[in-house]
Amino acid sequence: MGACLLEGEEAPALLVNGGGRTPYVLVCEHASNRLPKSLGTLGLPESELQRHIAWDIGAEKVARLLSRLIDAPLVLQRYSRLAYDCNRPPDSADAMPDVSETTDIPGNRNLSSDEKLMRTREIYRPFHATVADLLDRRAAEGTKSMVVTIHSFTPVYKGKPRAVELGILHDRDTDLADKLITSFPTVDARLNEPYGPEDGVLHTLNLHAAPRSLRHVMIEIRNDFLLDERGQVEWAERLSAALVHAAAH
Amino acid sequence: MGACLLEGEEAPALLVNGGGRTPYVLVCEHASNRLPKSLGTLGLPESELQRHIAWDIGAEKVARLLSRLIDAPLVLQRYSRLAYDCNRPPDSADAMPDVSETTDIPGNRNLSSDEKLMRTREIYRPFHATVADLLDRRAAEGTKSMVVTIHSFTPVYKGKPRAVELGILHDRDTDLADKLITSFPTVDARLNEPYGPEDGVLHTLNLHAAPRSLRHVMIEIRNDFLLDERGQVEWAERLSAALVHAAAH
Repeated sequence: MGACLLEGEEAPALLVNGGGRTPYVLVCEHASNRLPKSLGTLGLPESELQRHIAWDIGAEKVARLLSRLIDAPLVLQRYSRLAYDCNRPPDSADAMPDVSETTDIPGNRNLSSDEKLMRTREIYRPFHATVADLLDRRAAEGTKSMVVTIHSFTPVYKGKPRAVELGILHDRDTDLADKLITSFPTVDARLNEPYGPEDGVLHTLNLHAAPRSLRHVMIEIRNDFLLDERGQVEWAERLSAALVHAAAH
Repeated sequence: MGACLLEGEEAPALLVNGGGRTPYVLVCEHASNRLPKSLGTLGLPESELQRHIAWDIGAEKVARLLSRLIDAPLVLQRYSRLAYDCNRPPDSADAMPDVSETTDIPGNRNLSSDEKLMRTREIYRPFHATVADLLDRRAAEGTKSMVVTIHSFTPVYKGKPRAVELGILHDRDTDLADKLITSFPTVDARLNEPYGPEDGVLHTLNLHAAPRSLRHVMIEIRNDFLLDERGQVEWAERLSAALVHAAAH
């Protein structure tokens, strides 16, 4: 392995609609299943790289549509969470997991300190710098920000089906979550399911929103709804209506 | 004002004893009363720049002594909190205050978005990048970290004397605070005094330690004890003994 992970490749973060004028700032940490070329396939067959272990299926599409519908800036991650999970700190074993759900990730086994640090510095750190720069600029301009992370989850996890369709996740700041959940009367929407703060999934929000006292929430959509464009548009529209409603009340 | 705040001047953060091998990582956000040359004196007489409104008197000395005593890395801020208070997010009015205690800060009045952003990008952001890089490296190496911020406070605030001598401040993580307070039976030591989380003073810890699930605590020493070397050495030794004891239990 060379001294550089991403040499000649795409930057780890993409800012879409940076000048968007809603208070909402969208972040999609698990948008992509792409691996840096220097990591090969991490020893996995292509079929595994299409599964939810590599990315949040459909989340990028929903996030891009939502960004357009509500005129919100969106920060997208450009590499698979199997290379580095940008919703985990470098201190967490889940940041570069050697097992995801029940799948061994051979290319993440026994990483050296240098390998871990390279992934941290080239993927995690610049991704979060992009989010921080955006929020810094908005703060300097006096623009109010509320941070929303967009995720999807698998309908069956470790063999167990999940009934929940929409997860609205929060830690100490419950304001947006409490408002949003009222907008989904016909959906099986639940607070802090299928994950909650104890699972470490609020990392991005705890890193960027809580220390700035910005309102925030994490959205988890069950990915069997997001397999085609029709479902992606439907959920983007639902979320758009709910977020606009929450901002107004 | 040019496009650059610190051109040709010292970097905003100084890492001391970067390879220190204790679990403790020390941060001193208010170490210095120096102003960037391009900001002049912010319209203040020199006497005001010697007061606690510009810096935490004695804190750098205690932090450097402590870093040596317990072999801990230390990140020092090199510019006055009147230029940018690195223990506040750019979203806070206190980050570049136009009044500090009861003193008007003329050079901070009516800052433009560009001026605010320049201070954020050249002081706040690189300071915290230095802390983050240090913690990233330690995480990659598998080195455990506990983050301790070192501050001092004025014995008289807005005309009111303060009896508290040592403040041990915490937010949700009470572990280190609860341990440390037992080490000061002869001192007027109090939890979350003279400030607490509701004052926003735990920003650095909420930014770096909480999102990584690292133990953390903030130390506030009354600055009338730190006016000479004798007092600085005494408090560094006391804190050293207390921190070593806390790490062992």
